[in-house]
Amino acid sequence: MARLPDEFELIRRYFAPLTSGTPGAVGLRDDVATLSPQVGRELVVTADALVAGVHFQADDPPDLIARKALRVNLSDIAAKGGRARHYLMTLALGPEIDEAWIAAFVTGLGADQAEFGVSLAGGDTAATPGPVCISITVIGDIEPGTVLRRGGARAGDDVYVSGTIGDAALGLACLQGELEWLDSPAREKLVGRYRLPRPRTTLGPRLIGLAHAALDVSDGLVADLGHMAEASSLSADIDVALVPLSEAARVVLAREPERLLPVLTGGDDYEILFAAPAGAAARLAALSGELGVPIARLGRLGAGRGVSVAGASGLALGRGGYRHF
Amino acid sequence: MARLPDEFELIRRYFAPLTSGTPGAVGLRDDVATLSPQVGRELVVTADALVAGVHFQADDPPDLIARKALRVNLSDIAAKGGRARHYLMTLALGPEIDEAWIAAFVTGLGADQAEFGVSLAGGDTAATPGPVCISITVIGDIEPGTVLRRGGARAGDDVYVSGTIGDAALGLACLQGELEWLDSPAREKLVGRYRLPRPRTTLGPRLIGLAHAALDVSDGLVADLGHMAEASSLSADIDVALVPLSEAARVVLAREPERLLPVLTGGDDYEILFAAPAGAAARLAALSGELGVPIARLGRLGAGRGVSVAGASGLALGRGGYRHF
Repeated sequence: MARLPDEFELIRRYFAPLTSGTPGAVGLRDDVATLSPQVGRELVVTADALVAGVHFQADDPPDLIARKALRVNLSDIAAKGGRARHYLMTLALGPEIDEAWIAAFVTGLGADQAEFGVSLAGGDTAATPGPVCISITVIGDIEPGTVLRRGGARAGDDVYVSGTIGDAALGLACLQGELEWLDSPAREKLVGRYRLPRPRTTLGPRLIGLAHAALDVSDGLVADLGHMAEASSLSADIDVALVPLSEAARVVLAREPERLLPVLTGGDDYEILFAAPAGAAARLAALSGELGVPIARLGRLGAGRGVSVAGASGLALGRGGYRHF
Repeated sequence: MARLPDEFELIRRYFAPLTSGTPGAVGLRDDVATLSPQVGRELVVTADALVAGVHFQADDPPDLIARKALRVNLSDIAAKGGRARHYLMTLALGPEIDEAWIAAFVTGLGADQAEFGVSLAGGDTAATPGPVCISITVIGDIEPGTVLRRGGARAGDDVYVSGTIGDAALGLACLQGELEWLDSPAREKLVGRYRLPRPRTTLGPRLIGLAHAALDVSDGLVADLGHMAEASSLSADIDVALVPLSEAARVVLAREPERLLPVLTGGDDYEILFAAPAGAAARLAALSGELGVPIARLGRLGAGRGVSVAGASGLALGRGGYRHF
């Protein structure tokens, strides 16, 4: 199998340089890495797997696959108020993977390491006869006791979300050959949001002390709002007119209003959905301005159970999230 | 796809109970877990992926697959002197996986959590059209600065190994329909060593202060000895007559002496190979007795490079390790 250098050479040439910010990884020349946790901080950990053909298309650009795999984990850490520091990655590589693919994949990781201040601490590569499977564990830290849970919301809290919702779902539709009438710049923006999530790493840690509950929108706005409401033993009422949309998404919905369903339920948004008391509104507005991250109020949490979306009563929102099984 | 409960139910029913020792995982009802590192300890982390058909047979008992996946990581942590505390796991599940498989897999994990004092902290399940892919990250801790590296050996150090070598490789041969003349109890012992590694979790941490370098034997005795010698810029000379063998392996080699090659190079032993100065011999003997873990001296490290195995000059040992590519 000359398509790839041997495992040791692959590690030495491509993956070891990614550990430059993790001295305890000794350039991946050992079986474990040591990490020195910051004194007085708790660890925050998460892990996600991405499978070719399921979470990304096998022929997506490898640098974007790598960055998406890392970013979905960075988004989880950020939405909880944590700061990501290190990651471990295992790669099961299918027979179609060649050295150029690895080189591009690693270039993507390197770019995101620089952008988000994280570094590789360890991992493993293996061969698989099946699709590529990427598993990433991110280790971050946070001030003890401050992690933003799904279940901390209180009746009367306002519901907020960062950025815009629905772009990734519409981008996926573009990749599947739909929305062909849309102009190229708009299509590219939507596809870009699907392929390259933008984890809100500056916003999340700043929500500590302002938000009562938070999570990132990965399963879909309605489903993730349902998760927060359920975990908090509350109901959620939002208004579809308040859901923040990109210019491209507005153009799509103006011509194909039925696309509201994937916008609200499609997921892969990787924005932060959070609950905060009315008294936090002014500080949130200031924070939004300071960070340059839009924050929109969608509605409110109250007594009871379930999610209702005013202005979307004709849509079969269901529980709205993506299910694997 | 009614073969499995939905993802949320799968997590609630099977995986959440595995987090009982990780309060910060909040029963997997959130996107991250918090962990409180022990004050004054460094973290030790490692990650490995196992793919069906590559690292285990797809029809192996699911509880043993789970335990092997966990144990190969526990072995890495232990061989470096660390104590494993938590793990994160991602599972890409192929179409042949049903609820009974998951139930058995989780039972295996539960048994090993109890045996080794670790608990689940997080993870992810996803569907794959390909073979099952299991990725586990283990987080442990260690006294700062004491981690046993591959590269710490000194000229004149003795080379030691725990337990017995070669059983797993011979067990794999049994599973492949070879060694049919061997009696059932012996075959079962060898197959058991292949399917269920026995990480030396009691020995490893106790080697701190005694050993200069250590790693677990996963690639094969000769290859892993080569890794230690190379990382330490030394040569290694061992004697095949000193390699510790189980009774079953002795029976095999008496009738099929050519099986010495897989014994020395087959890997999957998950014993600890380490280098220690002559002055440590008495304390190692006492430690072996106290823990009930056999420790055998194989030879010595010296100036120069390379590995030589006296008594195995006719064997094509090569670099001796398993290569994925």
